[in-house]
Amino acid sequence: MEPSAVAGTQALLDGREARLLLGLDFAGTYVFAVEGAIAAIAGGLDPLGIMVLSFATALGGGILRDLLIGATPPNSIRDERYAMVAFAGGATVLFLHRFVTYVPPLLLVTLDAAGLSLFAIAGARKALDFGLRPLMAVLMAAITGSGGGTLRDLFLNHVPTVLRADIYAVAALAGALVMVAGQRLGLPSRTMALVGGAACFALRMVSVWRGWSLPHFSLTGME
Amino acid sequence: MEPSAVAGTQALLDGREARLLLGLDFAGTYVFAVEGAIAAIAGGLDPLGIMVLSFATALGGGILRDLLIGATPPNSIRDERYAMVAFAGGATVLFLHRFVTYVPPLLLVTLDAAGLSLFAIAGARKALDFGLRPLMAVLMAAITGSGGGTLRDLFLNHVPTVLRADIYAVAALAGALVMVAGQRLGLPSRTMALVGGAACFALRMVSVWRGWSLPHFSLTGME
Amino acid sequence: MEPSAVAGTQALLDGREARLLLGLDFAGTYVFAVEGAIAAIAGGLDPLGIMVLSFATALGGGILRDLLIGATPPNSIRDERYAMVAFAGGATVLFLHRFVTYVPPLLLVTLDAAGLSLFAIAGARKALDFGLRPLMAVLMAAITGSGGGTLRDLFLNHVPTVLRADIYAVAALAGALVMVAGQRLGLPSRTMALVGGAACFALRMVSVWRGWSLPHFSLTGME
Repeated sequence: MEPSAVAGTQALLDGREARLLLGLDFAGTYVFAVEGAIAAIAGGLDPLGIMVLSFATALGGGILRDLLIGATPPNSIRDERYAMVAFAGGATVLFLHRFVTYVPPLLLVTLDAAGLSLFAIAGARKALDFGLRPLMAVLMAAITGSGGGTLRDLFLNHVPTVLRADIYAVAALAGALVMVAGQRLGLPSRTMALVGGAACFALRMVSVWRGWSLPHFSLTGME
Repeated sequence: MEPSAVAGTQALLDGREARLLLGLDFAGTYVFAVEGAIAAIAGGLDPLGIMVLSFATALGGGILRDLLIGATPPNSIRDERYAMVAFAGGATVLFLHRFVTYVPPLLLVTLDAAGLSLFAIAGARKALDFGLRPLMAVLMAAITGSGGGTLRDLFLNHVPTVLRADIYAVAALAGALVMVAGQRLGLPSRTMALVGGAACFALRMVSVWRGWSLPHFSLTGME
Repeated sequence: MEPSAVAGTQALLDGREARLLLGLDFAGTYVFAVEGAIAAIAGGLDPLGIMVLSFATALGGGILRDLLIGATPPNSIRDERYAMVAFAGGATVLFLHRFVTYVPPLLLVTLDAAGLSLFAIAGARKALDFGLRPLMAVLMAAITGSGGGTLRDLFLNHVPTVLRADIYAVAALAGALVMVAGQRLGLPSRTMALVGGAACFALRMVSVWRGWSLPHFSLTGME
């Protein structure tokens, strides 16, 4: 489904699409930063800690992915606009912290699922662009999508939620797997990115709605 | 003791040796992954967490070393077989978790000590190959051997065991020191790698057998 | 205020200044390592843990900065003297641990504030040299100055102090902001480095003296 237009139109479309993708990336960064800031306040951190957790939650996953795939300096260290967006998310919570409890949880969950899908697909895409093998690109989707939340939990001295509850990184893995598999089958990459992102979003939303978690095991065979 | 054979035989030997080393590396990765998965189940993680801890415990030390010495992307990110072996270790525990308690502890300790020795020597070797100074190469041995277990403990919200008990990183340091010192004295590098690895293995096994730990100190001078 | 001397004198001055800066860098490393070792003993770590925390506290911030700005291998991995100085700090505490309680707290706080100022200014300077934007250079000042202490707290299984109490990273940010802003206004870089470092030192010392902390917020609007 690549548009087969003349070069000028193509460049125009590409420019528009690039701006749209950048806008979505900033929106996802903002949402993750807001969630990091809320967790920081709930964890008793001070305003500096709130800003650090906004930054780490929103950008930590992408930074870790970039370090691992050799894309240094990481994109969000080179381009200061990502830090500005993350700090804007932190500042929003700082100034409106009295009203955070009025935000409908479903709204936050939905925006977070959208951010997760975007980060997962973009993470896998970038890993493939840097020459990683398909399996590793799928792993990078999970790291991009859930690495920031893992860092946030480590700073707050919790066992990372993603390792013990919810269908979260699994949704990122599933979405990236759909995208990478489709591309290997020769399907158009833009379409497969949309399908993979939708799969991640749908799996995450349904799992929250139905209260799905992965099963737990114990070393004696009982729960 | 470098074999002074004709080029063809040399290449054949090198090919065999390279395959042997790769096989040992995979075996060590598998053992460390199994240990990470067992710790993950004991810590109440879900299957995703079990796989993450398998990966982090088995490959985290080598990845950290590669990031620090500038060998990016890290070897186990570029070569997907390492991730496959680590996930195989995690899957083994996941499917056989009821039988884990029947594994003789001495077997796990022995395999772990062998993995530690291999990782420590390989880590120091690679650091030297990347131009690091001898002292730093010895430190990289400890990071390669115990970095994964440290990550595992941090994910599980424990103070890393390696920092407070056992002779573990110290065995890695000692083995690497023997190897690096021997090479500086002009002894053949392959022999010194074997001697250093044996020293690490022996020190680790004897310390487990005798229950050795490093002494503890307090700021008031008493234990 | 760059000295407008003949080339020879300039080189001589530069050599002296370079040696002075290196000496200060080692002194800051030593102080941070001593603090890491004291925290390690207080946290019940063994001698290996004491040495690891000396290294991580003293050099972790600079290593993290170097990884993030793409200066790999990090300076303190390439130049083994930094590790030697850090281990000397750890060994000092190990051998003199009975006397640590006799060290006046104000002395440690003052030396630490001096180290923080030096690390913050040097961190921002290096980030600018590597082409980072001013905002990111200011962030790198905070990471260089407080990243090591954050790592130390994570190893000891604490929520990092810098995220919840004291004016510490904020002093690093303020000092670096003064330096970067002054340079953008065309003021001489050496002078602005001194002014920025003095600002960081003064803000840190006054905040300890007056017991300043950042305010805390809660999600219900009350403390």
